[in-house]
Amino acid sequence: MKPSTPKGTKDFLPKELSKRNYVIDVLKKNFEAYGFEEINTPSLENNSTLLGKYGDEGDRLIFRVLNSGDKIKKADLESFQKKDFTKFVSSLSNKGLRYDLTVPLARFVSQHQNEIIFPFKRYQIQNVWRADRPQKGRFQEFTQCDVDVVGSKSIIQEIELLNLYDSVFNELGLNDIVIKINHRSILISVAKYFGFNDQSINDFITVIDKIEKIGVESAYKELCFRKKNLSKKIFYDFFDNELISLETLKPILRNIENFEEGSFEIKQILDFFSKKNTLKNKLVFDLKLARGLNYYTGLIVEVITQTNDFGSIGGGGRYDNLISLSKFKNVSGIGISFGLDRICIEMERQNLFPDQSKNKNILIVNFGLKFLTKLYPLINSLRKHNFNVDIYQEENKLNKQLSYANKHGIAYVLIMGENESKTNSVLVKNMKTGLQYSKEITDIDIKNFFEL
Amino acid sequence: MKPSTPKGTKDFLPKELSKRNYVIDVLKKNFEAYGFEEINTPSLENNSTLLGKYGDEGDRLIFRVLNSGDKIKKADLESFQKKDFTKFVSSLSNKGLRYDLTVPLARFVSQHQNEIIFPFKRYQIQNVWRADRPQKGRFQEFTQCDVDVVGSKSIIQEIELLNLYDSVFNELGLNDIVIKINHRSILISVAKYFGFNDQSINDFITVIDKIEKIGVESAYKELCFRKKNLSKKIFYDFFDNELISLETLKPILRNIENFEEGSFEIKQILDFFSKKNTLKNKLVFDLKLARGLNYYTGLIVEVITQTNDFGSIGGGGRYDNLISLSKFKNVSGIGISFGLDRICIEMERQNLFPDQSKNKNILIVNFGLKFLTKLYPLINSLRKHNFNVDIYQEENKLNKQLSYANKHGIAYVLIMGENESKTNSVLVKNMKTGLQYSKEITDIDIKNFFEL
Repeated sequence: MKPSTPKGTKDFLPKELSKRNYVIDVLKKNFEAYGFEEINTPSLENNSTLLGKYGDEGDRLIFRVLNSGDKIKKADLESFQKKDFTKFVSSLSNKGLRYDLTVPLARFVSQHQNEIIFPFKRYQIQNVWRADRPQKGRFQEFTQCDVDVVGSKSIIQEIELLNLYDSVFNELGLNDIVIKINHRSILISVAKYFGFNDQSINDFITVIDKIEKIGVESAYKELCFRKKNLSKKIFYDFFDNELISLETLKPILRNIENFEEGSFEIKQILDFFSKKNTLKNKLVFDLKLARGLNYYTGLIVEVITQTNDFGSIGGGGRYDNLISLSKFKNVSGIGISFGLDRICIEMERQNLFPDQSKNKNILIVNFGLKFLTKLYPLINSLRKHNFNVDIYQEENKLNKQLSYANKHGIAYVLIMGENESKTNSVLVKNMKTGLQYSKEITDIDIKNFFEL
Repeated sequence: MKPSTPKGTKDFLPKELSKRNYVIDVLKKNFEAYGFEEINTPSLENNSTLLGKYGDEGDRLIFRVLNSGDKIKKADLESFQKKDFTKFVSSLSNKGLRYDLTVPLARFVSQHQNEIIFPFKRYQIQNVWRADRPQKGRFQEFTQCDVDVVGSKSIIQEIELLNLYDSVFNELGLNDIVIKINHRSILISVAKYFGFNDQSINDFITVIDKIEKIGVESAYKELCFRKKNLSKKIFYDFFDNELISLETLKPILRNIENFEEGSFEIKQILDFFSKKNTLKNKLVFDLKLARGLNYYTGLIVEVITQTNDFGSIGGGGRYDNLISLSKFKNVSGIGISFGLDRICIEMERQNLFPDQSKNKNILIVNFGLKFLTKLYPLINSLRKHNFNVDIYQEENKLNKQLSYANKHGIAYVLIMGENESKTNSVLVKNMKTGLQYSKEITDIDIKNFFEL
């Protein structure tokens, strides 16, 4: 059998990995410029932390890790025979692989509440695992990049995180993106306007969340099953392609609870970015934006590219009850995440990755240890000055070694044979121009080494 | 129940993580300067890849991941009842968490042999998992840092990897380390000299491997059980504290098979580094160095600190048969690894981490959105120039905000209130000296911002 990675996982070869690392470096640099600090949590979490946080479907998608050693003997066969597989699995496993970075954050903040200072501004870039059916471009192990502020209700956090999106995508060269925002309170007021009550508001939001996929007509029809006399005209005014503005909504919704809170915050945000602080990318209020997750309570945000239709490349929002600490009840938080894989795909499509050609790479021609010994102090100096220096693996004919350099796109080759050795010099060859010059090693000015 | 990480795992808080990242950055920079490229492999590997590679004990320490969904119904209860737990576990799990980075490398090279160029010089810094009994300072999830050259038998690879150790530890400031080398062929010749045969050579090497721990006397006694008439004098000459030199060994072992090959290579290496290429750290031939793993076939190496007795901070060697590809039989490789956790402990002890005080950190005093709106273009510019800028979370009294800055070791605070706003200026306060000055925002020279 040909060796391979497990279904739904993949290797990263150097070229692809260095592109990912380029994006991660930009993310980290920006996160830190905004005052966020990095944490790491273990890949494994206890079942008590993991289970019951993502709904039944989520629980099923968590990779469970078998108890090791003799503990396997405690397998609860009775439950198996009774077809209570959940209980059977619980007897075999007390931990699992992390499913996202949000639940571990909640656990982290709770566990370390006396070691951290609030508001706690953390970022985390780590892998998560989901036992989803593998699809093209969707993997069971993938990297999440999350930024959260825990313990501050100030609107400045909303503003900072939206600005952070803009900074990152701008630095990556992605300038055709749209940052869409909405507010859960506004959505709730709309639901109430249409006559949905506390019990059915989440159903309403779930359908609104699907409009981008299924279209306004299907969404309208689906809601008509739940609510008679839903005004088609007003529904279309609200949710059709043309974005409705806060100003238009205001006279319609102002008497409905919740609207004021949400619209005030959205207006604060839009005003902030409307004057001298215009974002490089588009920032729009989009009433259709709903974000499925139930834990959002305030601002919600999603970032899409205008040119690619594979969904969002980022999203997040404010949550009020996700992290409940004994010490501070109802800790409010706000977080956004960056979709690393999709960002890389989009950057590849737009050809935005910086040139990876190895123009600081040097190959040392290998004519034997005798010459390499003499060259080695120079090699060490070049490496200290951030040149990447490779040594050809074995003594071989010069043209074979030069063709290896060509194949690898190496910029310069250094040669020392008998002649050069006698004069303590080295032949420097520019592989692009073919030009070469000889220089005594002691005369070499490393910083201006490549003068050809 | 207080939420916590699973037994044997830990969180990394910002301070500790940034130190680790500092070490990892130095490692990566050096690996790349030596022409190594990074790869990543999945955390999960198929059982067919993982099992049977680390001995029975190793197999037991592999974390197995439960098959998800309905596959759990295929649990082989019959095997359980027959107490064949290995078979029972196999019916529940077809993959596991990576145990090291060497077996995944072998799988990677075999799977991607047509996409990579040999010699393949890769590095990999990723986590591995072992179901070891957790101990103080030993975790079930930890990071390995491996550097390997696959597909080259040239001695230049041995030289390069030893030099890489020296470069890395030198850059980290660890200058009291000893790089110990030995050669499997020399150990084999010694075993043969003492009368051990092909079947018992590995037993001999296993005991030699323990000398550092149990002492030469216990090792001698243990070997006496296996071999009568073992010369105590010669054994002590060879393995006592005083290191024996190749020159002393030569007349004794020169007629024994294997000695010539090993001693020639060790001499080549020692000669290479004896002239102009002296390492910053000590490089010594140490006949006691054995390295337990059976797959080494040539040079073996281990790095210790002279001051700390917690074992090695790095090790590796040449292996000839680890990666068998259909295409190239018996691919030779050589690899070394860096013990990240121990390196960090030792650097901490010697106080070698660079000052992490936040002397590029700025706090923006928050007197409300009105002022922050005006300050925001300046904030954005500072962040682009790599200052880390945090905004105080809410409107509050100035002295409360300043005391927050003090508590966080922030270097500078920027203040804009009514007075400053009227003149479009900002008050810059140096938190160490207490000095402050006021400047119009448009007059600010960001690069020389902090002139106090």
